[in-house]
Amino acid sequence: MLDEYRNRASFCPKRMRGIFEDEPSQAYRTKLWSILGSKPIFRQPQFPISIDEYKNLTYQRCKELIKANLLSDDEMFDNPRHKMILEQCLAMYDSSCHAKYTLSMTVFRETIRTLGTQRHEYILNLDQNHQIFGCFALTELAHGSNTKEMRTRATYDPSTQEFILNTPDIEAMKFWVGNLGYQATHAVVYAQLYTNNTCYGLHPFVVPIRDPLTYKTFDGVEAGDIGAKCGWNGLDNGFILFRNYRIPRENLLNKHGDVLPDGAYKTQFKTSSKRFGASLGALSSGRVGISSLAIGLLINCCTIAIRYSCVRKQFGPSPGIEIPVIEYQTQNWRLIPIVASLYVYRNLALSVFDNLAEFYALSMSRDESDQDLLAYMGRELHALACTCKAICTWNTQKACQECREACGGHGYLYATGFGIIRNDNDPSCTFEGDNNVILQQASNYILSNYEDVYINNTSIQSPFESILFIKTMKNILRNNRCSITRECHLKDLLNAVEWLLCYILEKSARKINQLTARNNMSSFDIKNAAQVYHLRTLSIIYIQRTAIVRFSQYIENNDEMDDKCKSVLDKLLIVHVLKFLEENMNLLFEGDYFKNGSISIWIQNRLLDLCEDLRNEAVTLVDVFAPPDHILNSVLGVSDGKVYEAINKVIHTNKHTFLTPPWIKDDLINRSKL
Amino acid sequence: MLDEYRNRASFCPKRMRGIFEDEPSQAYRTKLWSILGSKPIFRQPQFPISIDEYKNLTYQRCKELIKANLLSDDEMFDNPRHKMILEQCLAMYDSSCHAKYTLSMTVFRETIRTLGTQRHEYILNLDQNHQIFGCFALTELAHGSNTKEMRTRATYDPSTQEFILNTPDIEAMKFWVGNLGYQATHAVVYAQLYTNNTCYGLHPFVVPIRDPLTYKTFDGVEAGDIGAKCGWNGLDNGFILFRNYRIPRENLLNKHGDVLPDGAYKTQFKTSSKRFGASLGALSSGRVGISSLAIGLLINCCTIAIRYSCVRKQFGPSPGIEIPVIEYQTQNWRLIPIVASLYVYRNLALSVFDNLAEFYALSMSRDESDQDLLAYMGRELHALACTCKAICTWNTQKACQECREACGGHGYLYATGFGIIRNDNDPSCTFEGDNNVILQQASNYILSNYEDVYINNTSIQSPFESILFIKTMKNILRNNRCSITRECHLKDLLNAVEWLLCYILEKSARKINQLTARNNMSSFDIKNAAQVYHLRTLSIIYIQRTAIVRFSQYIENNDEMDDKCKSVLDKLLIVHVLKFLEENMNLLFEGDYFKNGSISIWIQNRLLDLCEDLRNEAVTLVDVFAPPDHILNSVLGVSDGKVYEAINKVIHTNKHTFLTPPWIKDDLINRSKL
Repeated sequence: MLDEYRNRASFCPKRMRGIFEDEPSQAYRTKLWSILGSKPIFRQPQFPISIDEYKNLTYQRCKELIKANLLSDDEMFDNPRHKMILEQCLAMYDSSCHAKYTLSMTVFRETIRTLGTQRHEYILNLDQNHQIFGCFALTELAHGSNTKEMRTRATYDPSTQEFILNTPDIEAMKFWVGNLGYQATHAVVYAQLYTNNTCYGLHPFVVPIRDPLTYKTFDGVEAGDIGAKCGWNGLDNGFILFRNYRIPRENLLNKHGDVLPDGAYKTQFKTSSKRFGASLGALSSGRVGISSLAIGLLINCCTIAIRYSCVRKQFGPSPGIEIPVIEYQTQNWRLIPIVASLYVYRNLALSVFDNLAEFYALSMSRDESDQDLLAYMGRELHALACTCKAICTWNTQKACQECREACGGHGYLYATGFGIIRNDNDPSCTFEGDNNVILQQASNYILSNYEDVYINNTSIQSPFESILFIKTMKNILRNNRCSITRECHLKDLLNAVEWLLCYILEKSARKINQLTARNNMSSFDIKNAAQVYHLRTLSIIYIQRTAIVRFSQYIENNDEMDDKCKSVLDKLLIVHVLKFLEENMNLLFEGDYFKNGSISIWIQNRLLDLCEDLRNEAVTLVDVFAPPDHILNSVLGVSDGKVYEAINKVIHTNKHTFLTPPWIKDDLINRSKL
Repeated sequence: MLDEYRNRASFCPKRMRGIFEDEPSQAYRTKLWSILGSKPIFRQPQFPISIDEYKNLTYQRCKELIKANLLSDDEMFDNPRHKMILEQCLAMYDSSCHAKYTLSMTVFRETIRTLGTQRHEYILNLDQNHQIFGCFALTELAHGSNTKEMRTRATYDPSTQEFILNTPDIEAMKFWVGNLGYQATHAVVYAQLYTNNTCYGLHPFVVPIRDPLTYKTFDGVEAGDIGAKCGWNGLDNGFILFRNYRIPRENLLNKHGDVLPDGAYKTQFKTSSKRFGASLGALSSGRVGISSLAIGLLINCCTIAIRYSCVRKQFGPSPGIEIPVIEYQTQNWRLIPIVASLYVYRNLALSVFDNLAEFYALSMSRDESDQDLLAYMGRELHALACTCKAICTWNTQKACQECREACGGHGYLYATGFGIIRNDNDPSCTFEGDNNVILQQASNYILSNYEDVYINNTSIQSPFESILFIKTMKNILRNNRCSITRECHLKDLLNAVEWLLCYILEKSARKINQLTARNNMSSFDIKNAAQVYHLRTLSIIYIQRTAIVRFSQYIENNDEMDDKCKSVLDKLLIVHVLKFLEENMNLLFEGDYFKNGSISIWIQNRLLDLCEDLRNEAVTLVDVFAPPDHILNSVLGVSDGKVYEAINKVIHTNKHTFLTPPWIKDDLINRSKL
């Protein structure tokens, strides 16, 4: 049945894959899949295992992966995208494994490399030789987003040349620290630095936590595992409290600020906004990474739902004849837009990753004249990365629920994988910044650029082109005319998207002005009162429009693209844009861009036609990105479509299937005594 | 902090509770909570336990609950709502416990009582005396919704006077059967009945599965546990296959059809549509039950998110001053409409339960003149129950995700309960009918009544008043004028809701007519092509409008209602209606009911004002329905608001917090050997 749908596709999946991933990247991905299929330790359990077993398994897997030397520095330098592919593939395989591996391979080391100086090199060497194991501790129990209010203290004692670490109360314990639960021996800890009775703000320290030879925590340190989470349970997230715990003065990571032996505080750090912009770029790396995890999980859940919908038959035009559920209007209308979002957002996440790589490349240059550009890039990248993370993680979370329900009752089986995907994507909606909070980064950025152009009369700086529209927005708004016609030209749809972004920015700016004019509101209150229906919507539409524009440019600028692939991609884009316009139709009517109710019905019909049309391409569209069966690990998503055999096999290989549990036996014994 | 918000509430929670639940119901609920807090076996684990342990625990708990005799037949007769309260309370406590208890106490017994005859009474006696344990097997691996195509066979052999049960292939194995995994000794099995080489369709049989003294399955029966699900893992869902398995002729539940010893098929069943209508009513009971489970879980997740939002402080107008996150516009706009939906849908689910009770009461009467009314009731109840189940389960699923995210990173902790709530509500979206599929029941019902009125000129029969609007809809549509004014009178908002329902029904009927006029489409194709944006929307708006109307009538018809409570309830209703209009604004513009974009902005402002206003009532609004802490079992939802202490306590009572796992120790030993 699945092959029947594969035969119906109008395009060649190999060519399609080639459009979105070059040969070396494809080869690298294939290599990773094959490593993850090579050893028994990588085999996926088809039944839930205990948290203890899972943590152990994850630890052993990570050791194997580190041994396998998956990505050398040279390779990464030659092809930065390989880093993203590596992380995405690991996340598609197992989120805990991905997290434990990535945290140990990068975050601790990167921080010491970036914020430490020569005197910390021995730590990097110890880490490289696996003699210690590091983690990164910033978040506190009562403070996540608001880092400034964190309360762990490091007070300098010149008499012994040590810092004394203290956790004032449980609310200030470091919390959620990945790899700290059981394994880390050292932590980068952020604490408020006090010296000479003055607080100099949050600073990073390298802190020994556990004896690497016994794994006992040192006196003055209380550290442990925070317990079960809704997912990611192979990772040991930990907490830590300090009680008069002393560390040498040199453990301060002193790149940007230092305390001299006598207690004097010293910094070369210039708090210029340019330096700040550049440092923002560095923050983006985590969020860009999360976006690509969300895309990986989206690929998994789309693949399962589309394949199963093509093999599952239910009801039909006459008795005895049943049709695959993908043929139903409701089903293809639910699923096809998710496939379209996969293509559009996958491209977005990749493009933001490329922006990040460009930013890093430039930041390595020593040319002072690049510093302005670097700052502009950093700020724009920050806006892109925050919103891209928010939209990708939300989209996957919603899609996962829809895909699971679209599989009916069986979607609730553990062996389908949906439960794991939903639980594993979930934290991405709130970590590295709650989506609703980090959205504000983009609206702040756009608004300040708007003010620069229209109040300060400065020119716009948008190295990644996401806010160039501000220049021309007044014209677009003045010419408030919808050009969409019955023929449904992409250009006209894109005009509507463009108008929408201009409209919501103008609406937001106007709202801020009105609130400011009241004179009795702080800037904090103003921002707060202009969130819903204004700044929040602005950030969301900003990134959705970026996604649409970048995808459309990607198709247009690819001269060698196979016509058949192009035709399908055009359709996917139109589905995505129509869905976007539908979701924002309130605004289109509110701003009088849509003047006639009939456009609503036109959009509905066009969307339904395209979804029906694309149902025959759907299986091949997910095949393009689908991982092999041993990675997808879903009874409903098997590539040969034999889902019932797969369910049957799982049941018959589970040793718990046919047993009589002891608690029932006990009852029998009791009953026989009666 | 929580008490500070409690003090700000304008109304008395006790009075509010009294409005929605009478004294005996409140007392019964309190009694249940207290039983569930009385014994160590009911204590909730704060860490995940293995599936085996969970199944055992659930089994032991159910035995205790059965011993406790929670609801006698007399009690239930005196106060039918107690049955609903019992099920809801158990689901709020633990979904698996609820399911195992309910399945064993009702479904098997009810089916035999309803479909069996005197010759089956001995089975009921055995069951009552705990000598056997029953389950109900309908769904097959490849057929859930489409029961007609089920393929388990029961072929009559007159030579031995037995039925021979056979499962033709794995796709026809019975699947998902609750309590069958390990425990059931007997099953009601639905199979296609063959006698004298003729198939008489699906019939129910009582089938012995396992020997009650050894728990071994009988020869010819293969039965076992289907394995892990995304939740409900305390329940043993099972599968069963038959291979030439013989059961006595008398095991056919023969109320509606029988096979005589010689093999002749005999039935008194008149396939009148009235009889069918009456039998539909019986199907509704499960769906009404699921609605109230969904409400129970909604209470839990609202309570957690609102309480935590009032104690969690983050950021603020100036350094060092932080404010509770409920004070943020985005946060109260996300959460208050969920609280409003709780009040409105709780009332809906209860009202549909009351409709069901009325239907049952009438069905027990022997008066032939009531049979017409019974059929009308049955059909309307079916439409109400299907859509009520869909809207309540979807609303909880969405709300749970929003509430979990609204709690930020900590919302991902297992001990918050969100993971469990989300996983436990999830199956309700697809079982007892996939929501998208059962929605069609209501649109079919409404459309056929529309045709009766406007084509067949018959009068409308709507004992529960949900489709009386069909009579007056043409007038409403003719007078296509929105009466909403700046003063925001409820009456005008309700007019808009009314118009919306009329509009979508008219739009659907027109679409069906257009498709019918094409002449080349079967009725199956027509229904399919008119689902999205038509029939599906019709069903959803039908039940949402019913919910709104019933809530508004409930407030209006309560003469003794405390003014302060009434004022808050009015606001909640307006929030709910505004949100509903906002979500359906496309249709309001499309149908030219809204003519001016400014109404969109007006709705936004009104909604934001009300959400801000109600943030001071929120804690008390959830207190009204919140279960005690030992039931809610959430570190973020504790009633004293001491969330950080609660997290700290969970960590420090977990024996896994401070251990050094053996797999790390093993590594140390290996390292020391180097």
